Amino acid sequence: MLSAVSWQENQLTLIDQTLLPEETTYIQLDTVEAVFEAIRKLRVRGAPAIGITAAYGLYIAMRNFSGDNREFFQQLDKHIAYLSEARPTAVNLFWALEALKTSLLNSQETSVENLKSLLLKLAIDLHSDDRQRCDDMADHGQAVIPENAKILTHCNTGALATGGIGTALGVIYRAHQNGKNVLVYADETRPVLQGARLTVYELASANIPVKLICDSMAAALMQKEGVDLIIVGADRIAADGSAANKIGTYNLAVLANFHNIPFYVAAPLSTFDMAISEGKNIPIEERPNDEIRKVFDKTRISVPDVDCWNPAFDVTPPELIAGIITEKGIITAPYRENIKKTFNS
Amino acid sequence: MLSAVSWQENQLTLIDQTLLPEETTYIQLDTVEAVFEAIRKLRVRGAPAIGITAAYGLYIAMRNFSGDNREFFQQLDKHIAYLSEARPTAVNLFWALEALKTSLLNSQETSVENLKSLLLKLAIDLHSDDRQRCDDMADHGQAVIPENAKILTHCNTGALATGGIGTALGVIYRAHQNGKNVLVYADETRPVLQGARLTVYELASANIPVKLICDSMAAALMQKEGVDLIIVGADRIAADGSAANKIGTYNLAVLANFHNIPFYVAAPLSTFDMAISEGKNIPIEERPNDEIRKVFDKTRISVPDVDCWNPAFDVTPPELIAGIITEKGIITAPYRENIKKTFNS
Repeated sequence: MLSAVSWQENQLTLIDQTLLPEETTYIQLDTVEAVFEAIRKLRVRGAPAIGITAAYGLYIAMRNFSGDNREFFQQLDKHIAYLSEARPTAVNLFWALEALKTSLLNSQETSVENLKSLLLKLAIDLHSDDRQRCDDMADHGQAVIPENAKILTHCNTGALATGGIGTALGVIYRAHQNGKNVLVYADETRPVLQGARLTVYELASANIPVKLICDSMAAALMQKEGVDLIIVGADRIAADGSAANKIGTYNLAVLANFHNIPFYVAAPLSTFDMAISEGKNIPIEERPNDEIRKVFDKTRISVPDVDCWNPAFDVTPPELIAGIITEKGIITAPYRENIKKTFNS
Repeated sequence: MLSAVSWQENQLTLIDQTLLPEETTYIQLDTVEAVFEAIRKLRVRGAPAIGITAAYGLYIAMRNFSGDNREFFQQLDKHIAYLSEARPTAVNLFWALEALKTSLLNSQETSVENLKSLLLKLAIDLHSDDRQRCDDMADHGQAVIPENAKILTHCNTGALATGGIGTALGVIYRAHQNGKNVLVYADETRPVLQGARLTVYELASANIPVKLICDSMAAALMQKEGVDLIIVGADRIAADGSAANKIGTYNLAVLANFHNIPFYVAAPLSTFDMAISEGKNIPIEERPNDEIRKVFDKTRISVPDVDCWNPAFDVTPPELIAGIITEKGIITAPYRENIKKTFNS
């Protein structure tokens, strides 16, 4: 199994995802500046993987620190601010690093050497917690995967995006490990092509049968070839069960509904934002025109100055979702009630 | 208005579509070999535009002929066979050229000079008939276009594909000419990107407001921005009203149905194949994997040897079609009955 991020023998190693799928290159990061650059240049991507990388980066920034306790926390603040700037729109990154600081403060530890050791332990724990969450989602998800399943997925939700085997793709990995004989159809996922670049690469690396399709082929696939289920990840889920995910996800949910194919979302509980009551209140980032107008920022596909509409995400309403696979089990309708129950259990 | 093909002062001129949208280059073709090359290399595309170009090409092949009547038809057969080979899968091309020959034979004309003049007249008639059909479709289509319409379309169905203003895009051109204040959303139309390359180019050239979207954004567009209608072309329509068109069309029809948006097909009567009773009997060409794996045959987007599923067309069932706009008016359900009536009227 691939690992986007690994920590072994005091060494942080990433797969350089900007070179995928052409080249599989591992890079070792020894300085906080190198970690900053790797996050900024998208050598590592996916909210969990970025958070884990930044946590190790914070330890790398502090491991050679010498000074007193007060200076330690001053330096820590400086590096948290610095690393957070690597992806300014990824607010999770800032909060993940702030949470580490809070844990250090709450420890009441005063020895600088002990604080450093604790910081490393917290980063490793963050990583192993994410790995465990992925495994738990994968296990719960098995209930919805039949034998000989034809599964359609969108974007990349696997080992390249998380600290473990992934969310939606983790469920598929586990089905394959369990000998369920799955065939995966991967949407290419325009405009940034995470499906074509990353999901196909991951599945091929794991010897799981995969076929690549263009996003526009999903309906014909359902009509002519048959699809047993659709499983996707989520970036944010509202309290009513509405799921924001990579643009194109809502397309699949509507098409699945028409063809009577169950549509599942796999996402850890950290994805739920209980402060957002309904899907329509989830803010959607609109991205630059050139992301559509050029493939990989180099091959122009249209008139240079054409206006585009380029939302990064769309929102799938709960009535189109057959179930949300979490580390605590599968949540089904009525979502508002059952999400609350899951959080309180 | 652009013209894919024009004939002026005994001169055949094409827009070289392989250079679009980067460069608008007109090429003049003086020999049958140049016409063959232009068709083979896709400098001209779209069944009507290819048929018209080949008809002019046949005249160019024969215009300097000297010999007797019998030799004239021998030469004609040779050039028909030659030009038909330029796109061997475009069976329409062969039949269009054979139809010219039949008209020459039926004319009972024996003078070679008169046969040459008649051949040019037949080519010009073919072209002007197509232009007239486009105009008639455009006029009939106005009934379904409201003021301030937001219209979504797929692939390219305009002046670059036909001898006139197009089919689906022709209806849009006419609405703009009539001052209806339209905004067009153009699907990029993966894998070959005819929407991004050609439809955007055509609309921008005509100063019609256009926004480019990825195919995967259509559902979010309908949900968030509102779309008043969808209008697409067709490659072949069965006797039951099922419409085969560029892959991704059926996606839009299902999404439109869910969002209660009317979905129209614009196609001349020559598109109907009454020998095909139902949509499921329309043969669908599957195209090479590399068409998906590489953009413009140069920019690789996935693992080199990944398997793909790449149908060129999909089939939209009649129950998802609000109306079929033809040169004789708009055909609505019940389609089997009303298509028959239209053909017999």
